[in-house]
Amino acid sequence: MILPALLTSAAFNIVICVGLMSLYSILRKQPYNLKVYFGQRLAQLQPGQKNHYFFDRMIPSAGWLVKAWEATDEDIYACGGVDGLVFIRLIVFCIRMFTVASVLCLFIVLPVNLLGRGIEVIDPETQMDIFTIRNVQEGSRGLWAHFFALYVISICAYALLYIEFKNVARMRLEQVIRFPTKPSHFTVLVRGIPWSTEESYSEAVRKHFSSYYDSSYLAHQMVYRSGTVQKLMMETEKMYKVLTETSINQYVQPITVGIGVPTNPFKMGTSESESASKKDKHEAKSHKKEQEECPAAFVFFRTRYTAMVASRIIQSKDPMLWVIDFAPEPHDVYWPNLCVPYRLLWIRKTLVYIGSILFSLWFLLPTTLVQGLINIGSLERTFPILRGISTWTSTHVTSDAGGSLEQWLNMEVCKHYFRLSTKSGADVFCFTCAACNADVCYTRRIGTWWDRMGKLTVTGMKDMATLLGNLIPGQAPFFMTYIMTSGWASLAYELMQPFVLIVNWIYQFVLMRKEGYGDLYTFPYHIEVPRALLFNLLGFTFCILAPLILPFLLVYYFFAYFVYRNQILNVYITRYNTNGSYWPVAHNAAIFALIVMQSVASIIFSMKKFTTASTMAFILIIFTSLFNLYCRHKFLPLFTNKAVQDLIEMDRHDEHAGKVEEILSRLLSSYNYKVGSYSGNHPTDLLAAEYKKV
Amino acid sequence: MILPALLTSAAFNIVICVGLMSLYSILRKQPYNLKVYFGQRLAQLQPGQKNHYFFDRMIPSAGWLVKAWEATDEDIYACGGVDGLVFIRLIVFCIRMFTVASVLCLFIVLPVNLLGRGIEVIDPETQMDIFTIRNVQEGSRGLWAHFFALYVISICAYALLYIEFKNVARMRLEQVIRFPTKPSHFTVLVRGIPWSTEESYSEAVRKHFSSYYDSSYLAHQMVYRSGTVQKLMMETEKMYKVLTETSINQYVQPITVGIGVPTNPFKMGTSESESASKKDKHEAKSHKKEQEECPAAFVFFRTRYTAMVASRIIQSKDPMLWVIDFAPEPHDVYWPNLCVPYRLLWIRKTLVYIGSILFSLWFLLPTTLVQGLINIGSLERTFPILRGISTWTSTHVTSDAGGSLEQWLNMEVCKHYFRLSTKSGADVFCFTCAACNADVCYTRRIGTWWDRMGKLTVTGMKDMATLLGNLIPGQAPFFMTYIMTSGWASLAYELMQPFVLIVNWIYQFVLMRKEGYGDLYTFPYHIEVPRALLFNLLGFTFCILAPLILPFLLVYYFFAYFVYRNQILNVYITRYNTNGSYWPVAHNAAIFALIVMQSVASIIFSMKKFTTASTMAFILIIFTSLFNLYCRHKFLPLFTNKAVQDLIEMDRHDEHAGKVEEILSRLLSSYNYKVGSYSGNHPTDLLAAEYKKV
Repeated sequence: MILPALLTSAAFNIVICVGLMSLYSILRKQPYNLKVYFGQRLAQLQPGQKNHYFFDRMIPSAGWLVKAWEATDEDIYACGGVDGLVFIRLIVFCIRMFTVASVLCLFIVLPVNLLGRGIEVIDPETQMDIFTIRNVQEGSRGLWAHFFALYVISICAYALLYIEFKNVARMRLEQVIRFPTKPSHFTVLVRGIPWSTEESYSEAVRKHFSSYYDSSYLAHQMVYRSGTVQKLMMETEKMYKVLTETSINQYVQPITVGIGVPTNPFKMGTSESESASKKDKHEAKSHKKEQEECPAAFVFFRTRYTAMVASRIIQSKDPMLWVIDFAPEPHDVYWPNLCVPYRLLWIRKTLVYIGSILFSLWFLLPTTLVQGLINIGSLERTFPILRGISTWTSTHVTSDAGGSLEQWLNMEVCKHYFRLSTKSGADVFCFTCAACNADVCYTRRIGTWWDRMGKLTVTGMKDMATLLGNLIPGQAPFFMTYIMTSGWASLAYELMQPFVLIVNWIYQFVLMRKEGYGDLYTFPYHIEVPRALLFNLLGFTFCILAPLILPFLLVYYFFAYFVYRNQILNVYITRYNTNGSYWPVAHNAAIFALIVMQSVASIIFSMKKFTTASTMAFILIIFTSLFNLYCRHKFLPLFTNKAVQDLIEMDRHDEHAGKVEEILSRLLSSYNYKVGSYSGNHPTDLLAAEYKKV
Repeated sequence: MILPALLTSAAFNIVICVGLMSLYSILRKQPYNLKVYFGQRLAQLQPGQKNHYFFDRMIPSAGWLVKAWEATDEDIYACGGVDGLVFIRLIVFCIRMFTVASVLCLFIVLPVNLLGRGIEVIDPETQMDIFTIRNVQEGSRGLWAHFFALYVISICAYALLYIEFKNVARMRLEQVIRFPTKPSHFTVLVRGIPWSTEESYSEAVRKHFSSYYDSSYLAHQMVYRSGTVQKLMMETEKMYKVLTETSINQYVQPITVGIGVPTNPFKMGTSESESASKKDKHEAKSHKKEQEECPAAFVFFRTRYTAMVASRIIQSKDPMLWVIDFAPEPHDVYWPNLCVPYRLLWIRKTLVYIGSILFSLWFLLPTTLVQGLINIGSLERTFPILRGISTWTSTHVTSDAGGSLEQWLNMEVCKHYFRLSTKSGADVFCFTCAACNADVCYTRRIGTWWDRMGKLTVTGMKDMATLLGNLIPGQAPFFMTYIMTSGWASLAYELMQPFVLIVNWIYQFVLMRKEGYGDLYTFPYHIEVPRALLFNLLGFTFCILAPLILPFLLVYYFFAYFVYRNQILNVYITRYNTNGSYWPVAHNAAIFALIVMQSVASIIFSMKKFTTASTMAFILIIFTSLFNLYCRHKFLPLFTNKAVQDLIEMDRHDEHAGKVEEILSRLLSSYNYKVGSYSGNHPTDLLAAEYKKV
């Protein structure tokens, strides 16, 4: 890689990005692009307000950057929930981290590299190496600069990671207090209800919970099977009921069997009016028989405390029976999956896990192939005439193709996953899978190393380490280009939304449909988080070895800060909120990056005959592991639990304020199949709605 | 390895073992060896009974094998607790498993191996190979026999493992019901009590639990620091109290601060008699000031259910504060460790973990060295004259030296560990560490392969696999010798207890001390379980490749069955009961062995150009992993939890029987530093005592 070529590529990319951003600031003002660029805003408005409100606000808005900058955390939270906020925290962490690293490495490490005389003959192929640690001579005292930078960066990383983990954990806990009346606080999801010929599932649930949670068991709601045939039957039945003049209302309401709340709007089987409700009960029973019950139910409790206790402990001697979990929010329930027997769930999870590994391997195949074909070095050797332009175009094309493929495949997996398992687990998987992809991106390059190393005769571990240490600094130019083409370009793409934009134009001007095209999308965390983490890994790996990569990264993160804030505020809606539960993945990725940085530094120090620093760098790896353990002990339990103190305080507060009965009566009608169905065609911004309610 | 040499070695070992066993049956009848061979029986007897009882029973007892055979599970349980029972189940599992494997492999696989013509020239060095799979030709149809055996053995293993896991889980659950009045059911151990300048730890505990567990919080007992200085101070204080005529009794009793049980023998701060006990309170307070409080306490509840709930949920927003665990049994408490702050515990655990790895590596060093020196092959080449006897002596010596070293080091680590962490965690570690050692034993041999492979030029993974597949069957004779020298010999050693025997003789006949020598030992699970598992691994790895190893293994397990039953019944006492919590380790080791067997089979099938079977064996690996996942889902939660149903039933039963107050009053005095102290010089068989009580 020649320096002028890199600079040309950088200049070209910057011009493209600035051009696209200017274009965006023009396009977003056009009223016919409203649906493309302001999906989130439109969703929050009442239908009537639309025209006035948006024209008033949009005419003078050239400075979208200023708006993105001025938005408070509260605004981000209102639009993107905790997830959006946590994602912005991740970007901020990277900016802070690499600002520190840039100051240290550009002003202390880079001069040392430049002044070293490790590379004698400067030929165009290795021209870039004078900026890397390879230019420092063996045993040089200049290596202390690298060592110093390594330690300061590591310590900064520890501090920043600790602060961010703490922040995210705090945000999660505050969520519980922020929405005290959420039905999920009072509700648990029971699976694996034991089958008996004598009683129905519903009776088994009632018996179990009224026996063991007598004082605080409120009611329960069974889950019914809803295949296509079931749906058809339900429709027919509905028609029949209409014809025989039975109230539809009774049908749409879920069948909730309880032991009585005074203000319960649809009492069924209350202990006080047992005889009176016998007819009702009978009716409900015959009704239940018609629909097929699943061995799953939502159980409602009087207090948040009992709901949490029930979900944390093992009920019976067989851990596969009476499995209790926190209930998801009503609008997060993916009903068809609730009927999957619990004993099959782990098989599905395992299959998805195996599938994700196979998928990653399969994804590795074409990219390695393309990389192998359009490898700059081999191309240059075959067609020397291409030398000039091949530098940027080839990498550009490859990376973009790879990037698109990656995005497309990612979406595929997520779609599949939504069919495979409950929605509540989706986030976890998406990120594991996507983080896996991030690794794949990285191993894409390592793959070519592997080939190279495979050809050599490996005689021991030490030689392998030396080989790795020699190869890594030389890869910096490739990754600089990668950051430009994959990182900067993706931000411009994200901002412009070219696909939706063009389809919208076709709808409006070719098909002459006034309403235009533009669906409400959710933020693609499963693509953006791994991308940010991948660049994080690149930054940590190369910051000491080849500091020239840092400006490229900082530019990416600064742009990302503005772009993603803008997108969260204006474009994407929040359909499902994980409450930032992907942070531990991000934290682990950062720890992994730190360990890679320290291991590579340790290897290179020992290659440069600087054993003290090598040993000290190795000790740093142990410290990093300990730090990680500490963070896991300190914060990770908060991601799977709620604190008893909070819940009991909230319960008491409700009791003093006399709001209990009101909350409980609302609770019973909250898990409604019709409302909660995820398969609806017009999802509404439920979080925003909920926020307004509060 | 030459066949006659192996047979000589086997005959020699059998003669030694049978001789030692006959000697044992004579020695055990001698009254002066009582303390050596009947420690467990002596501990269960009252001092007065001793002479009559034992002479009556001992004179005709030539058939100790019969007695060991006739003992019921109930007897084993009475002497060795659940741990002893589970260990016997492990041996039984191995016997069943390898009986099936022997029938299949000796009658189907071995003839195929013998009739194959894969090895043309039979030279003495590879004479044994005609019994292995190496003698089967490439593409031979005889390999279907191996394939069939592989599948049948795998399926048998699944069934047996499932049954045993279920049995052990059931036994653990039954323990809870069997000892309904155990104080640990009602008690939790609280650590990480937050520090405040305004109130003492004790007050903080009282405030927290009476606020959040109002209805069922009974009392609590602080833990006090007890260093050497503290002990001296306590002694002085005690003397002073005696001199000033204060009752010592008041001192020895722990200071229990509660909110009142009618029959509480030492009411302190009961809500009813608050004014009356003010003086008491003041006294207790000044007393507490003198001793230094630790941020740890035992908290007692009125119901088992609440105790379990409290120990399963997170109390506060900081998971490092108010950390609640199941309380250990009173006699299992290692008091000095309770004062270790919770925030340091994870560091200690990590250090122990790192230490165990380093220790294993360090242990690898001398054994590899000795093995390298006394390698049969190199010896034979250097001194051809030694050929005849080197076959068994060298391995004998090495293995015994290694074994003794292993035992000694194991003991060392355990001792250290008891000082490092709470006793309740000890078992987990001992087994991790010891299982690690088992692996080390195995890698001892792999280590020499590694050297051999290191010298070869490795060009790819495939060659490595081929190399491994070629080497493994050839190692069978070594491991046959290993089973004889390390396995059979260790059983004879275990039975004879030569060290204690000789010391006892010296005490009685040289030093003329009538009482003799002989301490009460606990069963060395940390040595015996990994040994059984190691042989299990050997059996699975070689059963299809070299079936001749199976008879040696079966002999070992049959002897082990009798010897260990005898030892559990007669020699060892139970000082600490893990309730079989080491079973998951054993299960994992068995799964690992299965996977090793299937991988090696898959490699060797593909080497023999039998691709169908190779693929099918690979599929079996996936099945094994899935089976393991299933077992973990199904049974593992029972090893860390108690079932709510059981606890609530027990609570209700007590309430109906009116035994609650009696149990609670006994509870408060149970966690007594004096009684519970583990450092006592004369440990009594507490389990046996408890058993009698029930």
